[in-house]
Amino acid sequence: MLENINGPEDLKQLSVSELERLAGEIRQFLIEKLSTTGGHLAPNLGVVELTLALHYLFNSPEDKFIFDVGHQSYVHKILTGRRDRFDTLRQYKGLCGFIKRAESEHDVWEAGHSSTSLSAAMGMALARDLKGEKNKVVAIIGDGALTGGMALEALNHIGHEKKNLMVILNDNEMSIAPNVGALHHYLGKIRTDRHYQKAKDELQSLLNKIPAIGGKLAKTAERFKDSLKYLLVSGILFEQFGLTYFGPVDGHDMQGLIEIMKQASQVEGPVLVHVVTIKGKGYLPAEADSHKWHGITPYKMESGQVVKAAGPPMYTEVFSEALMELAEQDKRIVAVTPAMPGGSGLMKFAARYPDRMIDVGIAEQHAATMSAALAMEGMKPVFAVYSTFLQRAYDQVVHDICRQNLNVVFAIDRAGFVGADGETHHGVYDIPFLRHIPNLVLMMPKDENELRRMMKTAIDYNDGPIAVRYPRTNGLGVPIDAEMTPIPIGTWDVVRTGEQVAIISIGPMLGVAEEAAELLKREGMNPRIINARFIKPLDENMLRSLAEEGMQLIVLEEGAELGGLGSAVMEFYSLQQIYGVNVRIIGVPDLFIEHGSVKEQRAETGLTAERVASEVKSLMPRQKRIATGQ
Amino acid sequence: MLENINGPEDLKQLSVSELERLAGEIRQFLIEKLSTTGGHLAPNLGVVELTLALHYLFNSPEDKFIFDVGHQSYVHKILTGRRDRFDTLRQYKGLCGFIKRAESEHDVWEAGHSSTSLSAAMGMALARDLKGEKNKVVAIIGDGALTGGMALEALNHIGHEKKNLMVILNDNEMSIAPNVGALHHYLGKIRTDRHYQKAKDELQSLLNKIPAIGGKLAKTAERFKDSLKYLLVSGILFEQFGLTYFGPVDGHDMQGLIEIMKQASQVEGPVLVHVVTIKGKGYLPAEADSHKWHGITPYKMESGQVVKAAGPPMYTEVFSEALMELAEQDKRIVAVTPAMPGGSGLMKFAARYPDRMIDVGIAEQHAATMSAALAMEGMKPVFAVYSTFLQRAYDQVVHDICRQNLNVVFAIDRAGFVGADGETHHGVYDIPFLRHIPNLVLMMPKDENELRRMMKTAIDYNDGPIAVRYPRTNGLGVPIDAEMTPIPIGTWDVVRTGEQVAIISIGPMLGVAEEAAELLKREGMNPRIINARFIKPLDENMLRSLAEEGMQLIVLEEGAELGGLGSAVMEFYSLQQIYGVNVRIIGVPDLFIEHGSVKEQRAETGLTAERVASEVKSLMPRQKRIATGQ
Repeated sequence: MLENINGPEDLKQLSVSELERLAGEIRQFLIEKLSTTGGHLAPNLGVVELTLALHYLFNSPEDKFIFDVGHQSYVHKILTGRRDRFDTLRQYKGLCGFIKRAESEHDVWEAGHSSTSLSAAMGMALARDLKGEKNKVVAIIGDGALTGGMALEALNHIGHEKKNLMVILNDNEMSIAPNVGALHHYLGKIRTDRHYQKAKDELQSLLNKIPAIGGKLAKTAERFKDSLKYLLVSGILFEQFGLTYFGPVDGHDMQGLIEIMKQASQVEGPVLVHVVTIKGKGYLPAEADSHKWHGITPYKMESGQVVKAAGPPMYTEVFSEALMELAEQDKRIVAVTPAMPGGSGLMKFAARYPDRMIDVGIAEQHAATMSAALAMEGMKPVFAVYSTFLQRAYDQVVHDICRQNLNVVFAIDRAGFVGADGETHHGVYDIPFLRHIPNLVLMMPKDENELRRMMKTAIDYNDGPIAVRYPRTNGLGVPIDAEMTPIPIGTWDVVRTGEQVAIISIGPMLGVAEEAAELLKREGMNPRIINARFIKPLDENMLRSLAEEGMQLIVLEEGAELGGLGSAVMEFYSLQQIYGVNVRIIGVPDLFIEHGSVKEQRAETGLTAERVASEVKSLMPRQKRIATGQ
Repeated sequence: MLENINGPEDLKQLSVSELERLAGEIRQFLIEKLSTTGGHLAPNLGVVELTLALHYLFNSPEDKFIFDVGHQSYVHKILTGRRDRFDTLRQYKGLCGFIKRAESEHDVWEAGHSSTSLSAAMGMALARDLKGEKNKVVAIIGDGALTGGMALEALNHIGHEKKNLMVILNDNEMSIAPNVGALHHYLGKIRTDRHYQKAKDELQSLLNKIPAIGGKLAKTAERFKDSLKYLLVSGILFEQFGLTYFGPVDGHDMQGLIEIMKQASQVEGPVLVHVVTIKGKGYLPAEADSHKWHGITPYKMESGQVVKAAGPPMYTEVFSEALMELAEQDKRIVAVTPAMPGGSGLMKFAARYPDRMIDVGIAEQHAATMSAALAMEGMKPVFAVYSTFLQRAYDQVVHDICRQNLNVVFAIDRAGFVGADGETHHGVYDIPFLRHIPNLVLMMPKDENELRRMMKTAIDYNDGPIAVRYPRTNGLGVPIDAEMTPIPIGTWDVVRTGEQVAIISIGPMLGVAEEAAELLKREGMNPRIINARFIKPLDENMLRSLAEEGMQLIVLEEGAELGGLGSAVMEFYSLQQIYGVNVRIIGVPDLFIEHGSVKEQRAETGLTAERVASEVKSLMPRQKRIATGQ
C-alpha cells in the first residue's frame, strides 16, 4: 500500500482498516530504513497513527501542522512524497531529520529546539484571522516539551485570546529522558482515568443542558457546576488555562483517534487533544528502552543491536567520569540537567549520587537561575547543557549568574559542529554570546586529558562563574593522568615552536593546525602552534610577546567568525593600544550550516588543514616583505 | 514609631495594631521621600503590610526573602536599617532601587528582570536540605511575573520536588501594565471567591476527616474527593501543580495576613499564599493610575502632579508616532509587546489599531517566536522590547527568527545606559549578542528624524529580520521630515569631513564625537566623523576607502567593548585580509555598571568628549610617525 501513497490526497479515500494496515507498513519502513541511516526512531514509531489521522482529517498545506522540535516528522515526510529520500536521511545534502521548508510545501514551520510550537501556532492563528482566512492550525507537542517555559507562556496567551487552534498533546511520558515535574504527575493521574470516558461523555452532555443561573445565586451555581465539571473532565488544568480539553485517547487506536480529533476540530476556540502514545511502538527493542532509542545510530534490525564505532571515549563520557571523581572529594558538587541526563553523561552520576543530581525537565532558564541560587548558598552546581540549548538561558547567565558573580560551573557539551542534527543544533555561538559577559571564565580543552584538568580547574575556582566547552566527538585517545591537575587561569600553551606565523587554535582545531603544520613543513615553513585553552581571560602575556616578536597570527576556531576568539585577540591589542599585529580569523562563516557529518561541515566552511596551510603561506611572504621593508 | 525601627528585631514585640500604625507611617515616608527622588512608588505602597508580616513572622537573614524583580523592596529596606539613605535612592553611589547584596545581609538575592524568584527559592531550598539546615525560604512574586516562562518552569519543578518553601503570590492584577493571559482570568475568578473562605475552612476540616478508601473503589473515591476539594479550595490550579494553596487573603488586613502566613508556614512541602493587594494603596493618585505610578519621576506630593522636564520628545514617542503613520499605509504591520505597552510607547497604537496590537504578558520568548509565525504568514510584526529584556529571547531570535530568515522588525528600546535602573537594565549587550546571528540587519539612528527613516527602512525591508535600537533619552530636537525616506541598507554617513583619524560612532555617541571634534579644533586637529547607521551589515565600501586613505580609526559606542561595532570593524579587515588599519575601541568596559544618571555612567566609563579627544590626539602623532617612516 505504502508505494501508492504519494501525497496526503491518497489517504482520503482509505478506510480505517486500510489506514491501520498502512500504519503497519510505515512502521516496517521506518525500522528498516533507520537501521542503516540511524535517526529518531522511537519518537516516530509513536506518532504513526497520529500523523495518519492528521493527514486524513485535515488538508495540508492549507491547514498548518506544526511539529514541536520536528524530529517526529518522519511519518509526515513519508506521507508527503519524500519516501524515496529516506536512504539519505540526516546525511550531507540528504533528507533533513527535522521539518525543512525547502523540502516541501507541507513543511510550514522549522524547529529543532523544543517548546516553540504553541507560539508558532498562536502566531499563525492570529495572522489567519487578521487576513480573514479559515484554515486550521494544529500544533503537535510532547508532554516533555510542554514544560518548557515558552510553551507555558504560549498556553497562557492562547487561553486568553481564544483563537481557533488545536493543540495535540502527544503524551508518551517521556521527553528524551523520563519526564520530571508536577505537570508530568498530573498527566499520569489523567491517564489512569481513561475508563471514565464513556460515563463522562454522557454526564457532560447532561451538564451542558443545565441552564445558566442569574442573580445572586449565579456565582454559587457556577462554582458547583465547575466542581461537577472537575469530576467529569480529566484535563481541568487545561480548561483552567482556557482550552477545551479532549481525551485522553489511545494514540494507537486509529478509529478512536480520528473520532476525537474530528469532534475537537468542530469546537470554537482553542482545544487540546490529549493523545497517549507509546514511544517506540511496534519495535520491541525501542519499546523496551525508548530513552536509548530516542535518537539512534545504525543497528541490526532483527536483534536491535546497535552498530558501535570503536574509538576512544567521547568527551561526554570523560566529563562524566571526571565529575564523579571530583564529587567524591568535594561534597559541594551538585549536577544540574535540563532533561538531558543521558546526553550529558549523567546517568552514572545520578545512580551514584541521587541526592546531588537535579533534573529539572526541559527548563534551561530555571536550571540556570536555580544553579545561581545553589551557588549562593555554598554549593558547587555543575550545569551540564548542550551549547545550543544554553542559548535559552542567555539572560539568566548574564543577569543571575555572572552579574551576581556566583560559582556556577558550566559544562557545555556539543560545542562546535554537531553533524547530522544540523543547523538547529550546532554549538557555534556560545563563544560570541558568552564572551562579552563580565566575570565569566571560558575554557576549551585540546583533548580528553585536558578536559579532566579543566574540570578540576573549574571545581577549584571560587571567584565566580566558569565554563568548559567540549565537542560532540570522541577524545583523541591520549594517556590520562592519574591525578587531575588544575591549569592556571588564563594561560595558553605553545604546543609547537615555530616562527613568523602563530596559529592560535582552540579545542579540536588543534589537530587541524598540526596537520597544516605538517603540510607546511614539506615546504620548509614552520608556524608556531598555540593551544588557547582560555577564551576568557586571554593569555595577555603571551599576546604581548607575540606582538613584540612581530609574529603574524591566525586564530582557528570551530565557532562563528564574528565575535569569537579571533575578535577577542584583536580587541585585546586594540584596547592595549598595541598596533600593527596582523590577525587572520578562520572560523565558521556568517551562515547557518546544514546537516551532514562534522567532517563535511568542516570542509564546507574551510576548517581544514589545507586551508589553514594556504593561509599561513599567504601570510609568510608578506611577513618577509614587511621585515625587509623596515 | 518608624524612627525606632532599626532592624527586624524591633518589630517582633509590636502588637497588630502597632504594626498597622507603622504601616501608615511607612506609607507616609514613601510618598514623601519618593516625591523628590522618584522611584517605584505604587508597587511598594502595595506591599507595606506584606513586608511587615514577613519580618514580623520570620527571621531574616537566616530565613531568606526573595523578592521577584526587587523593585518592591523599599519597605524591606526601610525595615532593615536603610531608612536614612532614601534621599539617595536610585542616585549615583546612593541606595539601589532593587535588592543589593552589598547593602545589607538581609538582601540575599538580586534581580531586576522578572520571574526569577521561584527558581532562586528552589535552589536555596535544595541547598538548605543538602546542608541539613532548617531555615525558611520565601519567594514574593507578582501575578504578572508568574506568567513568565521561567517562573512556570520553576513551579513545575517545585511541585515535583516537594521541598519546604513558601511562594507568596502578590496579586495586584497588574504587572507594570494590566495583565493579560489565561492565568490572569483564573486569578480573577478566585478573587471573587473570597466570601467563601469561612464556609470553606469548615468544610475543609470535614474533608480531612474522610478516611482513605482502599481497594477497587479507591480511584473513584479519590476522584470524588478531588471534586469536592475543587469546590472548597480556590487555587486548585496551584494544587494541581503540587503546592498547597492558601488564600485569597486581603493583603492590607494585617491580622488576616499574619494568621494565614503563620498557618501556611507550618505546612510540610511547598505552599502558595495568595495575597490580594492594591498597587499604590494609600496614595490616591497612585491607586487611581497604578500603571503610570509603577515607576515615577519626582512629583508634587499634594496634587500628585508629576514634575516634567521640558525637552524634545523621547525616542520612544517618536518610534510610536512613526509606527502609527506606517501602520496606516501598511496593513501587514502588527505590534507585539511583552507586557510593556506603556514603556514601549504603544498605548496610542493600541487605541487606534486594537486588532493589530498583541500584548502577550511577561513572555519575551513567546513574543519572539509568535512574531516569527506572524511573519511566516505574511504579516509584518514589530516586536517592541527593551534591549535588556530581549536577552530573554536570544534563542528564539537565533533559532526561530533569523534561522528561518523571517521578516520580523525589532524595535529595541533602552539601548545603551538606562540611568537609575542600573546594572540589571542597561542595554549594552544587544550588539554583541545579536551581531553574530546570520541574516539580521541591525541599525541605530543618530537622532529622532533618523529613527523615523529607520522605521521606514525596516518596514520596507522584506529580505529577513531587521532591528532598530534607540536610547532611553529625549531626541535632539532636530527638524522632522514630513515624509519618511528609507536609508540604503549598510550605508554609513560622513557627518564631518576630516583627516588622519576617523571617529566611527553610533547613535547618541555622535554628539560626544562632535563635542570632541570641537575641542580638538582649538588645537588645530580635525578628525573625520562617521555616523555608522548600520552595525550590520557594515559599510564595506567606506571601510575599504578608509583603509586606502591610511586613516586611523576610533570606534565609539555605548555598548560592551567586547564583541561590539569596534570588533565588527576589525573582523571586516581581518576577513578581507586588509592589514595595517589601526582600530581603537571606546566602549563600555567589561564590568557591570551601577545605577546613577546616564551622564554619570558615561563619565564613569569614559564615554566623554574629553576622553575621545585625548584618544584622537594620541593617535595623531603616531599616524604622522608612520606616514613619515614609510
